[in-house]
Amino acid sequence: MAVFLFTDFGSADIYVGQVKAALLEYAPRQSVVDLLHDAPAFSVRASAHLLAALLARVPSGAVVLAVVDPGVGSAREAVAVRASGRWLVGPDNGLLSVAAGRAARHEAYTIAWRPKALSNSFHGRDLFAPVAGMLARGDRKRARLRKRARLAVTFGTSDLSEVIYVDHFGNVLTGLRASVFRRDRVLVVNGIRIPYARVYSEVPQGQLFWYVNSLGLVELAANSASAQRILGIVQGCPLDSETIKPPARTDRGRLTI
Amino acid sequence: MAVFLFTDFGSADIYVGQVKAALLEYAPRQSVVDLLHDAPAFSVRASAHLLAALLARVPSGAVVLAVVDPGVGSAREAVAVRASGRWLVGPDNGLLSVAAGRAARHEAYTIAWRPKALSNSFHGRDLFAPVAGMLARGDRKRARLRKRARLAVTFGTSDLSEVIYVDHFGNVLTGLRASVFRRDRVLVVNGIRIPYARVYSEVPQGQLFWYVNSLGLVELAANSASAQRILGIVQGCPLDSETIKPPARTDRGRLTI
Amino acid sequence: MAVFLFTDFGSADIYVGQVKAALLEYAPRQSVVDLLHDAPAFSVRASAHLLAALLARVPSGAVVLAVVDPGVGSAREAVAVRASGRWLVGPDNGLLSVAAGRAARHEAYTIAWRPKALSNSFHGRDLFAPVAGMLARGDRKRARLRKRARLAVTFGTSDLSEVIYVDHFGNVLTGLRASVFRRDRVLVVNGIRIPYARVYSEVPQGQLFWYVNSLGLVELAANSASAQRILGIVQGCPLDSETIKPPARTDRGRLTI
Repeated sequence: MAVFLFTDFGSADIYVGQVKAALLEYAPRQSVVDLLHDAPAFSVRASAHLLAALLARVPSGAVVLAVVDPGVGSAREAVAVRASGRWLVGPDNGLLSVAAGRAARHEAYTIAWRPKALSNSFHGRDLFAPVAGMLARGDRKRARLRKRARLAVTFGTSDLSEVIYVDHFGNVLTGLRASVFRRDRVLVVNGIRIPYARVYSEVPQGQLFWYVNSLGLVELAANSASAQRILGIVQGCPLDSETIKPPARTDRGRLTI
Repeated sequence: MAVFLFTDFGSADIYVGQVKAALLEYAPRQSVVDLLHDAPAFSVRASAHLLAALLARVPSGAVVLAVVDPGVGSAREAVAVRASGRWLVGPDNGLLSVAAGRAARHEAYTIAWRPKALSNSFHGRDLFAPVAGMLARGDRKRARLRKRARLAVTFGTSDLSEVIYVDHFGNVLTGLRASVFRRDRVLVVNGIRIPYARVYSEVPQGQLFWYVNSLGLVELAANSASAQRILGIVQGCPLDSETIKPPARTDRGRLTI
Repeated sequence: MAVFLFTDFGSADIYVGQVKAALLEYAPRQSVVDLLHDAPAFSVRASAHLLAALLARVPSGAVVLAVVDPGVGSAREAVAVRASGRWLVGPDNGLLSVAAGRAARHEAYTIAWRPKALSNSFHGRDLFAPVAGMLARGDRKRARLRKRARLAVTFGTSDLSEVIYVDHFGNVLTGLRASVFRRDRVLVVNGIRIPYARVYSEVPQGQLFWYVNSLGLVELAANSASAQRILGIVQGCPLDSETIKPPARTDRGRLTI
């Protein structure tokens, strides 16, 4: 089965190629798909929410190698999680916990396999990629997985009311799932109230709105413009929201806003 | 056959991986090649000219998935074009029209196939990638193509005398084809007259020149320097040109410039 | 065997896709791995040292297509080098020379094969990619390799005491191999003395240190911060180092620093 990569290694940098060289050694015939290599580098929680959202696009049966790991070289363990027919492989620092917790059920494992040479700073290449390769080939035994009761670090499954990612168009992704966020709510950023619209082409050029993005998340956008630049916000900014008051009916039956 | 991708989804962003996940589902054995994911995002015309130039490097028989689609979610249709032995799949907003118009002949089709779930903002993933996958596997029937007389939006086949793309070296690509642009012409940008040279190493370091780039386009460059930075121009800037006056022969037979 | 790419073509730009289209033509079944496409563009020497370090991660038997070639279109030759069971293909401008020189033994060849159409500015696509594809398929004869005594340009095999690359975290890679650089040495940059630490998590947040990176090179880093930004250095900056004086034992047996 295919291996999907979700990391903060940088899509233009020297690290992803080394991960792929390792995958080529352990799973030479498996397809490899880059989901994202510019995950929020020092924000494991935001990355965990983004990963959980992207996981809906990963086919059942696939292996996801997920590494956002500022604590690499410290004591945190290497884990594998089985959830919704997929394997997730990565550090036990919470990164996998939102996806795991939102699955109908999941199983967590400690990875006991170790390579002959393990660098201090690049477990993605030395440990996680080989294990992802083994699992992609169905060679679970070789990975030496040890069942455990739960992950050591979990962020819970609740939505995260903050900016989790800004894309290259300047669209602002939040950790709020649209399935539980009503269309009559407005997002409030720096005092600006931002209403819902269905799609870009329904608002004038340059106007801010929020919409249900293609991952099912609440996303701030502006038609043909960068919402990020207009709002001046970055990944990690908290978000407020409020419900639009329904128009009040006056004595004389007119609507007021 | 292989699928080639030409989009404005951003090479470092979360979108290309989702497109590839969809391709993996519909055409699991086909190779996928990223031609460009940083096409001029809000300039369909410039993107159309760049795509037409890049198409010469795409092997016959291949499928090109081309998406620069600021109007996604509006009424524009999804189309497939058969030209020079290749399939082009994308929005009917002019993006495919320069490549189509320059082919010896082409056929246009409306795509009638629709996925079970179609997002408002990501037809590249939900509609165009599956159809590209079907065509790459030779499963044209499944894509439900409906022959049509012509594309709805066409930009014509004439050259575009403006900056269509700036590469990461700072080289400035124009929409002018060198095959119809004489070597004795100079390009004029902000009052600066830029002459032709055959190759970088023929001009002094830092000097501006234009040359026939590897796609056959007129390109502004500077030896070991960024033409873009020297000229201060960006994608979309119009370009003037003039013919160098041939040296006049004076009464006494000397050359003057 | 797989083909590994090391270039300055830009990971987000229009060039890598064209190289891959050429590889697809000459070696349709071979895997292609992007090692790096943002090698220091105008610094062949720094690129040569980075390539030599990355080569340790490339499996034996693979072909490495390496192009950092500011002199493309000038008289420099196209060469192939056989070293440590791998083929290196690229320009004879020193880029391959550090890797070649550090191998136990290597053989150098002039590439006599020429394509029907050779652009002046993109030999990576027109010449090196086809030859890399031929070698990846084992079709050495077709590449028309001519044995030669040595490469024309060589940088030697000594370490390079300068910044050879800055990654997207702001970590600063040097051309110093940790295998020959003692842990009791400090690096000196702009008057700041930077000591060794084993791993990120062993120093306070924001503190500078050097460590042995995952390629075996001396690397300047800062815990959860950008060493590059703190130091204000860029690729090409020279580096000084000095040995920490061992604590002197005084008459009364106390340690002084």
